[in-house]
Amino acid sequence: MDYTLESGVDPLREAINDSLTAFVERENKYLRSIGSELFPVADALKSFLIDSGKRFRPLFAAAGFVGSGGVLDQASINAVASIELVHVCALIHDDVMDGSDTRRGAPSIHKLFEKLHGDSSLKGSAQQFGVASAILLGDLALVWASKALHESGVAAQSLLRALPLYDEMRVELMAGQYLDVYEQALASESIERSLKVARFKSGKYSIERPLHFGASLSSGSNLEAYSGYGIPLGEAFQLRDDLLGVFGNPEQTGKPAGDDLREGKRTVLIAATLERSTPDVKARINSLLGKPDLSLDEVEELRSTITSSGAADFVESMITDLTNKSLHALETGTITSDAKSFLIHMADVATKRKY
Amino acid sequence: MDYTLESGVDPLREAINDSLTAFVERENKYLRSIGSELFPVADALKSFLIDSGKRFRPLFAAAGFVGSGGVLDQASINAVASIELVHVCALIHDDVMDGSDTRRGAPSIHKLFEKLHGDSSLKGSAQQFGVASAILLGDLALVWASKALHESGVAAQSLLRALPLYDEMRVELMAGQYLDVYEQALASESIERSLKVARFKSGKYSIERPLHFGASLSSGSNLEAYSGYGIPLGEAFQLRDDLLGVFGNPEQTGKPAGDDLREGKRTVLIAATLERSTPDVKARINSLLGKPDLSLDEVEELRSTITSSGAADFVESMITDLTNKSLHALETGTITSDAKSFLIHMADVATKRKY
Repeated sequence: MDYTLESGVDPLREAINDSLTAFVERENKYLRSIGSELFPVADALKSFLIDSGKRFRPLFAAAGFVGSGGVLDQASINAVASIELVHVCALIHDDVMDGSDTRRGAPSIHKLFEKLHGDSSLKGSAQQFGVASAILLGDLALVWASKALHESGVAAQSLLRALPLYDEMRVELMAGQYLDVYEQALASESIERSLKVARFKSGKYSIERPLHFGASLSSGSNLEAYSGYGIPLGEAFQLRDDLLGVFGNPEQTGKPAGDDLREGKRTVLIAATLERSTPDVKARINSLLGKPDLSLDEVEELRSTITSSGAADFVESMITDLTNKSLHALETGTITSDAKSFLIHMADVATKRKY
Repeated sequence: MDYTLESGVDPLREAINDSLTAFVERENKYLRSIGSELFPVADALKSFLIDSGKRFRPLFAAAGFVGSGGVLDQASINAVASIELVHVCALIHDDVMDGSDTRRGAPSIHKLFEKLHGDSSLKGSAQQFGVASAILLGDLALVWASKALHESGVAAQSLLRALPLYDEMRVELMAGQYLDVYEQALASESIERSLKVARFKSGKYSIERPLHFGASLSSGSNLEAYSGYGIPLGEAFQLRDDLLGVFGNPEQTGKPAGDDLREGKRTVLIAATLERSTPDVKARINSLLGKPDLSLDEVEELRSTITSSGAADFVESMITDLTNKSLHALETGTITSDAKSFLIHMADVATKRKY
């Protein structure tokens, strides 16, 4: 059965979800065959994968594929879906690194296995068991990502053309994640530095590289146009994320209110606020940012400082500018018209989302 | 230039090292181009990779390749060398999971970055920064492993035939690592359970799968004979590891004396000791195993309990039996004679090593 972009985002997302479900069920059968000790691993990875929602990266990869002349069949759906597993690795490891206890309203993987340790009366440190399990489940997701791509059923020539892009994407992701961790530890106040992190962490990895990956699965054309669209949109995507991390509704984001403030995330939004603040206000912000037990009142205080400084508006206007720049780039290259319409819609989805 | 197995282990190991060095230097150039923040990542991965020694897995893969009719050229050396990077990921993540502070006599990666945090006066928890960095460096090594294989230069057909084996090896590794972590937490006393872990963690991953991977890069023949050789030898390899973890000389192993005892590793050696002990002695062993501040006297006490119980001799005799079984399997299949001689020698290297 073939899929088109014309029917919109939802049916395509469903096809991607079906592909991921089929893959994870096949793999879980294998894990379960090794022994009952691995049942929790299989269950946790399946829930984590299936319960998540947006599938932005596979959707962009599908658009890149079609935009460069590909016709979406089951094999190419499987291939573009595989990059969601890279993202699953990033999220599981991210939660360990940030010490985040929840993900999409549910316990994060390390918390889940910490609880399993207690429930099963295991010996040693429950916290260490949780971390070890999450490291391994993330590693497994990363390996599954390769496996899902290799087994997708795409023609050998497509696969061989896609592998270098796939590798680059994953190297950039890990480099970007390190930059992010380093940036938080540096407690940087520079807008320029925060933007560099946004570019590497999300700009390239979330949109540009999935588009390239999709393109390479078909003719490999339009790489430049995809960069022109993907890099600014990826930055806008990250800037929206930063706003949601501060102002998002917990019921929609699945994260506690002001979670990024509690984690002390050094985002463009924060850098822009600091730049607009007097030394006293700056000192106050720095004393609250990254405070693990930040109260709701303190979250509210930081929010109003950010808003009244003009930084939130500034970031909103950056998002608008970047999105316009991104849409403009769609006029270059030879992107097919169905992919173009889809990407125009996706720019909206990526930058106006509530979670 | 072609390489042969006839000149022995050392020249081949050198060729593998050269290939890894060239790869990591190329990749580091890229990391450094992103920004100076990534210099420590590049430096740490390079030292970690280059300073290590045995290259067992690439050596076995090379033997599998030649034994199935392949002629070792630069491309196939690059391909077999790539699996060392999978191992680098496993070691870096293993040290985080075990909380091991040293590796080969040097600080482990998380300790190195914990120190960097202090030296650079970064903010937040140095320990958390160390762990986050080590998770990402391990992830990067895992991605590099794929990249090194994809870029090795082997013919497309060889690469396509090798990918499923490569995937299986990595899935088994992660499953085996989880079994190991779980087994430690269960504080199991069963020889059978410990052997199952040894089989998954090391039996398949260290020897059988590298041989299969190498074979799949050439004709794909002899898989059964390689399993017959690799599985028992892998178990023997792990049992030697267990003995070295208790009795090894720190100057040779690069690990503190009795490190496995301090970590509370549940090995076949420990299970065999417990099986041979009175309830009192058993209780004493269980009270010492996994004690983080185990003294040298206590290490000595455990060592002599293990020896006098007969468990050390029992494990030595298991190693001998497994090795014989392994060598016997070389008589099956159509393994080329140069590979056969090499594998006979490698059986010795793997089971009689001092580190």
